[in-house]
Amino acid sequence: MKQLKETAEKIKSMEIRGAGKIARTAASELRDYAARLEAKYLDDFNKKMKYAAELLVSTRPTAVSLPNAIRWVMRYKGENVDEAKADIKKLADEFITNSENAVRKIGEIGARRVQDGDTIMTHCNSSAAISIMAQAHAQGKDINVIATESRPRWQGLLTIKQLDKLGIDATLIVDSAVRFFMKDVDLVIMGADAVTVNGSVINKIGTSQIALAANESRKNVVIAAETYKFSPRSILGELVEIEERASEEVISREKLDELSNVRVRNPAFDVTPREYIDLICTEVGAFPPEMAYIIIKDFLGWEIEEMNST
Amino acid sequence: MKQLKETAEKIKSMEIRGAGKIARTAASELRDYAARLEAKYLDDFNKKMKYAAELLVSTRPTAVSLPNAIRWVMRYKGENVDEAKADIKKLADEFITNSENAVRKIGEIGARRVQDGDTIMTHCNSSAAISIMAQAHAQGKDINVIATESRPRWQGLLTIKQLDKLGIDATLIVDSAVRFFMKDVDLVIMGADAVTVNGSVINKIGTSQIALAANESRKNVVIAAETYKFSPRSILGELVEIEERASEEVISREKLDELSNVRVRNPAFDVTPREYIDLICTEVGAFPPEMAYIIIKDFLGWEIEEMNST
Amino acid sequence: MKQLKETAEKIKSMEIRGAGKIARTAASELRDYAARLEAKYLDDFNKKMKYAAELLVSTRPTAVSLPNAIRWVMRYKGENVDEAKADIKKLADEFITNSENAVRKIGEIGARRVQDGDTIMTHCNSSAAISIMAQAHAQGKDINVIATESRPRWQGLLTIKQLDKLGIDATLIVDSAVRFFMKDVDLVIMGADAVTVNGSVINKIGTSQIALAANESRKNVVIAAETYKFSPRSILGELVEIEERASEEVISREKLDELSNVRVRNPAFDVTPREYIDLICTEVGAFPPEMAYIIIKDFLGWEIEEMNST
Amino acid sequence: MKQLKETAEKIKSMEIRGAGKIARTAASELRDYAARLEAKYLDDFNKKMKYAAELLVSTRPTAVSLPNAIRWVMRYKGENVDEAKADIKKLADEFITNSENAVRKIGEIGARRVQDGDTIMTHCNSSAAISIMAQAHAQGKDINVIATESRPRWQGLLTIKQLDKLGIDATLIVDSAVRFFMKDVDLVIMGADAVTVNGSVINKIGTSQIALAANESRKNVVIAAETYKFSPRSILGELVEIEERASEEVISREKLDELSNVRVRNPAFDVTPREYIDLICTEVGAFPPEMAYIIIKDFLGWEIEEMNST
Amino acid sequence: MKQLKETAEKIKSMEIRGAGKIARTAASELRDYAARLEAKYLDDFNKKMKYAAELLVSTRPTAVSLPNAIRWVMRYKGENVDEAKADIKKLADEFITNSENAVRKIGEIGARRVQDGDTIMTHCNSSAAISIMAQAHAQGKDINVIATESRPRWQGLLTIKQLDKLGIDATLIVDSAVRFFMKDVDLVIMGADAVTVNGSVINKIGTSQIALAANESRKNVVIAAETYKFSPRSILGELVEIEERASEEVISREKLDELSNVRVRNPAFDVTPREYIDLICTEVGAFPPEMAYIIIKDFLGWEIEEMNST
Amino acid sequence: MKQLKETAEKIKSMEIRGAGKIARTAASELRDYAARLEAKYLDDFNKKMKYAAELLVSTRPTAVSLPNAIRWVMRYKGENVDEAKADIKKLADEFITNSENAVRKIGEIGARRVQDGDTIMTHCNSSAAISIMAQAHAQGKDINVIATESRPRWQGLLTIKQLDKLGIDATLIVDSAVRFFMKDVDLVIMGADAVTVNGSVINKIGTSQIALAANESRKNVVIAAETYKFSPRSILGELVEIEERASEEVISREKLDELSNVRVRNPAFDVTPREYIDLICTEVGAFPPEMAYIIIKDFLGWEIEEMNST
Repeated sequence: MKQLKETAEKIKSMEIRGAGKIARTAASELRDYAARLEAKYLDDFNKKMKYAAELLVSTRPTAVSLPNAIRWVMRYKGENVDEAKADIKKLADEFITNSENAVRKIGEIGARRVQDGDTIMTHCNSSAAISIMAQAHAQGKDINVIATESRPRWQGLLTIKQLDKLGIDATLIVDSAVRFFMKDVDLVIMGADAVTVNGSVINKIGTSQIALAANESRKNVVIAAETYKFSPRSILGELVEIEERASEEVISREKLDELSNVRVRNPAFDVTPREYIDLICTEVGAFPPEMAYIIIKDFLGWEIEEMNST
Repeated sequence: MKQLKETAEKIKSMEIRGAGKIARTAASELRDYAARLEAKYLDDFNKKMKYAAELLVSTRPTAVSLPNAIRWVMRYKGENVDEAKADIKKLADEFITNSENAVRKIGEIGARRVQDGDTIMTHCNSSAAISIMAQAHAQGKDINVIATESRPRWQGLLTIKQLDKLGIDATLIVDSAVRFFMKDVDLVIMGADAVTVNGSVINKIGTSQIALAANESRKNVVIAAETYKFSPRSILGELVEIEERASEEVISREKLDELSNVRVRNPAFDVTPREYIDLICTEVGAFPPEMAYIIIKDFLGWEIEEMNST
Repeated sequence: MKQLKETAEKIKSMEIRGAGKIARTAASELRDYAARLEAKYLDDFNKKMKYAAELLVSTRPTAVSLPNAIRWVMRYKGENVDEAKADIKKLADEFITNSENAVRKIGEIGARRVQDGDTIMTHCNSSAAISIMAQAHAQGKDINVIATESRPRWQGLLTIKQLDKLGIDATLIVDSAVRFFMKDVDLVIMGADAVTVNGSVINKIGTSQIALAANESRKNVVIAAETYKFSPRSILGELVEIEERASEEVISREKLDELSNVRVRNPAFDVTPREYIDLICTEVGAFPPEMAYIIIKDFLGWEIEEMNST
Repeated sequence: MKQLKETAEKIKSMEIRGAGKIARTAASELRDYAARLEAKYLDDFNKKMKYAAELLVSTRPTAVSLPNAIRWVMRYKGENVDEAKADIKKLADEFITNSENAVRKIGEIGARRVQDGDTIMTHCNSSAAISIMAQAHAQGKDINVIATESRPRWQGLLTIKQLDKLGIDATLIVDSAVRFFMKDVDLVIMGADAVTVNGSVINKIGTSQIALAANESRKNVVIAAETYKFSPRSILGELVEIEERASEEVISREKLDELSNVRVRNPAFDVTPREYIDLICTEVGAFPPEMAYIIIKDFLGWEIEEMNST
Repeated sequence: MKQLKETAEKIKSMEIRGAGKIARTAASELRDYAARLEAKYLDDFNKKMKYAAELLVSTRPTAVSLPNAIRWVMRYKGENVDEAKADIKKLADEFITNSENAVRKIGEIGARRVQDGDTIMTHCNSSAAISIMAQAHAQGKDINVIATESRPRWQGLLTIKQLDKLGIDATLIVDSAVRFFMKDVDLVIMGADAVTVNGSVINKIGTSQIALAANESRKNVVIAAETYKFSPRSILGELVEIEERASEEVISREKLDELSNVRVRNPAFDVTPREYIDLICTEVGAFPPEMAYIIIKDFLGWEIEEMNST
Repeated sequence: MKQLKETAEKIKSMEIRGAGKIARTAASELRDYAARLEAKYLDDFNKKMKYAAELLVSTRPTAVSLPNAIRWVMRYKGENVDEAKADIKKLADEFITNSENAVRKIGEIGARRVQDGDTIMTHCNSSAAISIMAQAHAQGKDINVIATESRPRWQGLLTIKQLDKLGIDATLIVDSAVRFFMKDVDLVIMGADAVTVNGSVINKIGTSQIALAANESRKNVVIAAETYKFSPRSILGELVEIEERASEEVISREKLDELSNVRVRNPAFDVTPREYIDLICTEVGAFPPEMAYIIIKDFLGWEIEEMNST
C-alpha cells in the first residue's frame, strides 16, 4: 500500500513523466501491488485492485497513456486469487514489453514509407519519428532531415544531435522557416502526444502549422504514435486539455516584468485535424487517422458500453 | 566626388542600412552632389548625374528602395544647369519628406481598417505595421496585439516594448503558436521588405506561414508597405533575392561544430503570394496586391518602355 | 393481426411520424404482436414474425429508423416460442429505452465538446442538438446560441423558444446571414435525419451550406444523431431520397398562380459531405463520420452478408 | 438655398433613397443650385458651390454613390461664373444620363456572358442583374433563373414577378436551398450596393454565401454594378458600414417580447471577397474585381492626391 | 509439384496476368495441389501447403490480389489431412466464385448511385466500372458516358466499344479534355488496381487528375474495386510499387533515337488520395475509402498480429 | 483593292493562320493599301482606310490578334494624306517589328524567373514558352523540361525536337501523367491563344488541368503571351469562342463509324482561371493576370469609350 501510494505520488508530482514511462510504471506497480496483496477471496482482491487502479488513474486525470495501461492490466481474469495474480503479471509484462518494443516496430513499419533520396521534415523530438528515420537510414536509404529548432524548449537541438550520431544528414531551421523549405520536402514525419477518436493529433505546439503547410504543397504527413497515445475518453466527447506552460520558457521574468501591458501565452501543444494527416504509424500497423476508434477498440481493448456505464 | 564615393561605400558596406534610410541617403546624396557639381553645360551635368546615379544603384544591386529613390530624383528637368539643380533639390526633398511621412500616413489609412475590440496579430518589427496599431489605439479603439517572438533575431521583443510604451495590450507567443491563436485573431497586420509586380510580398521569414494560417481561418491580412518597397525590376521578370544569413543567428558556432552531419539554413525572408493578402496599405492609399504595377507606374513614376530599353 | 395492420397504416399515412417515434412504435408493435401470437411451433412463429416485420418495413420504404428498429428486435433467439417471445420483449424494450435515453446521452457526450464562453450556431430544430446545449448550460458553461429561422417552416422559432425556456441566450438570424455571423461562432451543432455509410449527413435544407461556411472559417461542425439514424441500406449503394415538399410552404398558391412562368422547388433536406463534419455525436459515443459503417455493424447489429442475400 | 436644404433633408430622412436616385438627385440639385446662384465672382461662386457640395455629402456620410455624383459635377471648370455654370450643367446632365443608361448598358455587356440554355442563379432584386437576364432573353437565348426568396424582405418575390413579366422561366427557392441547387447552375448573377478598392462586393445579406457555394462548385459569379457603386473612400482605408435593420423584419415585436433571452441580429448586407467573383459588369465594361481602383480613377475621376489632402 | 511450379512460372512470366485471373489461378492451384498431396500426417501436409503458398506468393511480390487469394485458402482448418483437404477445396471454390461474381455484384450496388439522366465520366477500361453503367442502363436509367482515350494504351477505345454494344451513349475525348467536360459530369466512376490501408487508390495513370478535377467541381468520384484489390501489406507500411512501362508505348524507338537529349517516362499508374474519393464500391458493399482496413480485416480475413509476426 | 481582298480572303480561308502571322499580315496589308491609295482628300482617305480595316477584321470575327493589329495601325494621325500615309507606315512597321521581337523579349523577361536546376513542365508547342527555356539555357542555367505529348495533335513531339536541338534535356510524358510528375516540377511555363480582361487564359486543351494540378502542389504557372493575344472585346463581355475540331484528330472515321452510339468531342482549347496563374510574361513586362485591362489599354491602345460607341 505504501509503495502504491509512493508510486502514485511520483506520477502526480511529475517525478515520473513522459507518456511511455508513466504507462509502464503504472502497469508494473499494479503487477507488484497484486503480488504483494494478501487477500484470500477473489472479491476482496478485486476490490483492492480496483481501488489501486482508480488511485493511479486519478494522479494525472488528463494523461492519455495512463488509463490505457491500467485498462490493459485490469482485464485480468481468474477463478481465484492466484490465477488472477498470474494473469495480472502476464498482462502487465505484456503491456510493458509491447510498449518498449513499440518505438522499434513503428520504425520498421514507417521506414517502408520512406524512399531513397527523400528529404524529411520533422518537429520537436519524437523518439518514434526518429526511429522511422533511423531504420530507413539503416536500410541504406539516403535521406536527409530538416529539423525545426522547436521553440520554446529547443527540442530540435536534441533531434539534430541524435540524427548526427546516427550519421543522418540534418538541417536545422527556425520554426518560422517551415513553409519556405516545404517545397524541398518529400515527407513530414512527426510524433504525437495524443490521438483522439476523430483522428485529431495533439502534439507539440507548431505541429498543426507544419501539417497545414505540408497540405498546401501536397506533401504527406506521417504521425508516429504508439497505440497507448490514443485517447479512449475522447469517444465520450472529452477534449484533450492543452497544457499552458510557464512564461519563463519564452522570455525571462525580469524582461517581462519591465513591460506592464505585456503577457505571455505558452501553450505546449496544438491540435492537427485529420484532413492534414495521411497516415498514423503505430506499432501494430499504419492507419489513416479516421481509424482511431478501431485502434482503441481492437488494440487497446476498450468497450464503449463499459465506458458509458462508468 | 569623394563624398559621393563615401556615401556609396557606406551603403555598400551596410554601415547605412534599412530600406528607408538607404533610399533617403541616396536621394540626399544625389541632391548634394548636384549642388556641388561645377558643370557649365547641361549635357556634361547630365552625364555626371547619370554616372552618380548608376554608382549609387550599383552598391546594393538587389535593394528595392534604392533604385526607386534615384529614379524619383533623376526625373529632373531643366533648360540649363541651374534649373536642373533646382529641380533635383525639389525632387530629392520631396522624396525624403514623402518617405519620412509615409509611416504616419500608412498608420492613418490602415487604422481605418481596425475596429474597436480587434485582436491583431503581427510578426517581426515593422514600423509601418506598428504605426497602424498606434493610430487605432490613439483613436480610442480598444485593441490587443499578439506578437510573435520572430526567431532568429527576436525582433518580436522590440515590438512588444514599443507596444508597451504606447499603452497597447500585447501578448508574446513563440512562432510555432501562430495557428493555435489564429482563431482569436480579427486581423493580421505585417510589414514588407519588397512587393513585386505580381503582388507577392517579400518579408521576414515566417510571414508566409502566418498568411497561410490566416487564410485557412478566413482572417484578413493587411500589409503595411511604403511605395518605395515596390520592385520595378520585377516587371522585367527579376526575382527578389532571398538573403541567407549566418548560422550563428540560429545556433552557436561551437555547438554546430560538434555535429558533423548538421548544417543550418537561415533565410531572412520568405514570399507570400497575393492570394493570401487582402490589402496593401501604402502612404498613398490601400490597394489589393494585384495593383502593384499601378503603384510602380503612377506613384513611383517608372515607365516600362524606358526600363526595357536599359 | 388487426392491430398490426392498424399500426402499419398509421405509419404509412404519417399519422405516426418522426424518426424516433416511428422506430419505437414499430418495435413495440412487434413485441405486442409476438405476445399475442398463438403459434405453437417455432417455425410457424418465426414465419409470422417475419411477415410482420416485412409489413412494417414496407410502410415507409425510404425511412431510415424503421428498418433499424425492426432489425434490432428480429435478432431474437430462442429454443421455443416462449423463449423467442421473451427475447423479443427484451430486445424491443431495450430498443425503446435506448432510443428514449439517446437524446439525453447525446447531450452528455456532446456537452463535453462545448467550452465556457462558446458561441454555438444551430439550424432548424433538433432535440439532440438542443440537448447538448442544455447540458452544457446546466453544467454552468456560459454559452450563447445563434439560431437560423429555418425557412420555409420556421423551425428556428421553436428552437429559440426552447432555448429561452432553458435560460440560454439566443440570437435569431435569417438563413442568409449564416456566413456573416460565422466569424463569431466557436462551434456549429446540428441534427441529422439520416447518416449514410460514406459519412454524408442528410438533414434539413440549409445544413450543408452552414457546414460549408463553417469549413471556410475553420470552425468545427458537430452533428447530433441517434444511432438509429444511420442508414444500413446505404451500404448497398442506396441513396437517401430527398423529399420535395409542397410549394405552399414557400409562397401562397394565389400568388404563385398569378405567375405563369414561375415554379417553386422545395426540397426538405440536403446532403453534407463528411469533409465538413468534425464529429457525429451518438448516444454510444462520438465518432468521425467515416465510422458510419462501424456504427451500423457494431451498434445496430447489421451484417452485410445477410443484407446482400436479401 | 432653401431648396438645397430641402433636398439635403430629403436625402437625410431617406425620403429619397436608393443608390441611383440619391446620386441623380444630388447631381441635379447641384446643377439647379448653381443656376440659381447670383454670385458675380468666380471665387465667391466656387466657395458657395463647395459649401453646397459638402452639405449634400454630409447627409448620408456612408453612402457610396453620393460622393461619386458630387465629385463628378464638382470637376467643373470655367474662366468665369457663366462658364462654370455651363460646365456644371453639362457635367450634371452627363452624370444623370450615364446613370440612367447604366442599367441598360450593363445588360448589353453582361448578356454576352450568358449562353443559350444557361441556368442562372440570382439573389435579392437587382435591376442591373435583371437587365442582363432580360437582354439575354431578348436575344433569343433560352435561359431559366433560380431566384432566392431573399429574407427578411422577400425581394425575391419582386424578382420573380419581373422575370415572369419578361417571359423568363423562373424557379423560386428558399435561401437555405442555394447549395442544393448549385449543381444545376451555370452562372450566378447578382447586384452590388458598393464595391471597395480591394474588390470586395457589399451586397444584400446572403450574397457572400451564394458566392462561396458557387466557388465550391466552380461556377462563375458575375456582379452587375454601376460605376457609381465603387467606393473611392475605401482607398483611404475606410470600411463600408454594414447597416443593421429593425428586428421586426425578422420576427414580430410581440413574439420577440415573449422571449426574455432572445435578441435578433439583422444586418442588411454582407461582404463578398474578390476571390469568389469572376467579373464585375459595369456600364463601361466588364472587369475583374481587382480593377476597382482603375474604375474609381479612370471612370469616376478621383485622384488620390486630392483625396489624401482632404 | 511439377504442376505447382509450372503455374508459379506462368504467373511469374506474366503468361497469366490481370489481378482477378492471377488470384483465381493461385487459389485453384492451391486446391489442386492439396488434392494431389499424399501426406499422411497433418503436420507434414501443413508444411507442404505452406511451402506451396509461399512459392506462389513469391512469384509476383508486389501483386495485391495474389496474397489475398492465398490467404483466403490458407485459413483452412481440419483435424486430419482429409478434413484439411476438404476445407481447402471449400475455401478455394468460395474465393473463385466470389471473385467471379464480384463484378456483377459491384454493378448492382454501384448502379443504385446512378440517377436517371446522369452523365458519367470514366477512364481506362475497368470491367467493374462498366458493370455499374451496364446495370444502371439495364434498369432503364438514361445515362451517357464520357470516356477518355487513355493514352498510352488507348484502353478508352475498348471502353467505348463495350458501351456501344450495351447500347449506352458514349462520348470519346482526349485525356487533356477532362477538366473541360467536368462541368457536364454528374458522377465519375473508375476502377482500381489496388487500394491501400489509408484509402489511396492506385489506378491507371490519369485517374488522380480526373479525381482532382472532379473535386474542384464538387462532383462525386466512385471507385469500383473487388475486395481482393485491397492491399493488406500496406498496413505494414508497404508502398504499392508503380510500374514503369516501355517508352515504345509513348513514342516509337526510331523517333526517340533521333533525339539525344530526350527520354520518356511512362508510369502505368498513379495514386489518388482518399480526400478525392466519395465511395469505393466492392462486391460486399459501398464504403468510404477510410474503411480499407475494415475490408482487409473483416472480408479478406487478415489479422494484424499474424502479419506482424511474419 | 484587289490585293486587299485577296489578303482578306487568305485570312478568311485560313491559308494564312496563326495569331502572329494573321496580325502581321493585316498590318502590312493596311500599310500597303494606304500606300497604293490615290485619295487626295483626307476625309476620303480616312473613309477608305476605315473600310479596309473593317473588311480585314470581318474575316475572322473571333480572332484576337487581328483587331489588335488593325487598331494599332488605325490610330494614325496626319494633317493631310501624305502625313497619314507616313504615320500608317510607321505604325504598321512598328507593330510588325514589335510582334517579331516579342518572342525574344518574352524569353529574356521570362528567363529571369527560371533558376538554375529547375525542372519545368510545358504543354503543347508554344514558341514564346520555349523562348523562355532557350534563354534560360543560354544563360547557362541547368534546366530540364517535362513535355506532354499534347493529344490529339501531338504538338509535344515538336516541342521535344526543338528542345533537343537547343541541347535542353527533355522528358516526354503522356497527358495523363501530369499530376504524377507535378511533385518533381519547379515551374510550369505554357503559352496562350488569348487572354481575356478577367485574366482567363485560353490555350490548348489540357492547359487548365495542368494549372489546376500545379496549384494543388503550390507550383507557379507562368504564361508566355504576346500583348496582341489580349482580347479587347472581352471588356465588352464577349466570350472567346472555343473551336471544336474534327473527330478524325481523335479517332479514325472508319473506327468511329462502326460504333453507332459513340460520338467524339474535340475542343481545341480550354480556359484557365486567373487564380491558377502566377504571372503572364509579355514582351513589355511580366504582369499578374488581373492586369489584362491595363495591357489592353496602355500597350494596345484601346479606349473603352470608343469601343462602347461602336
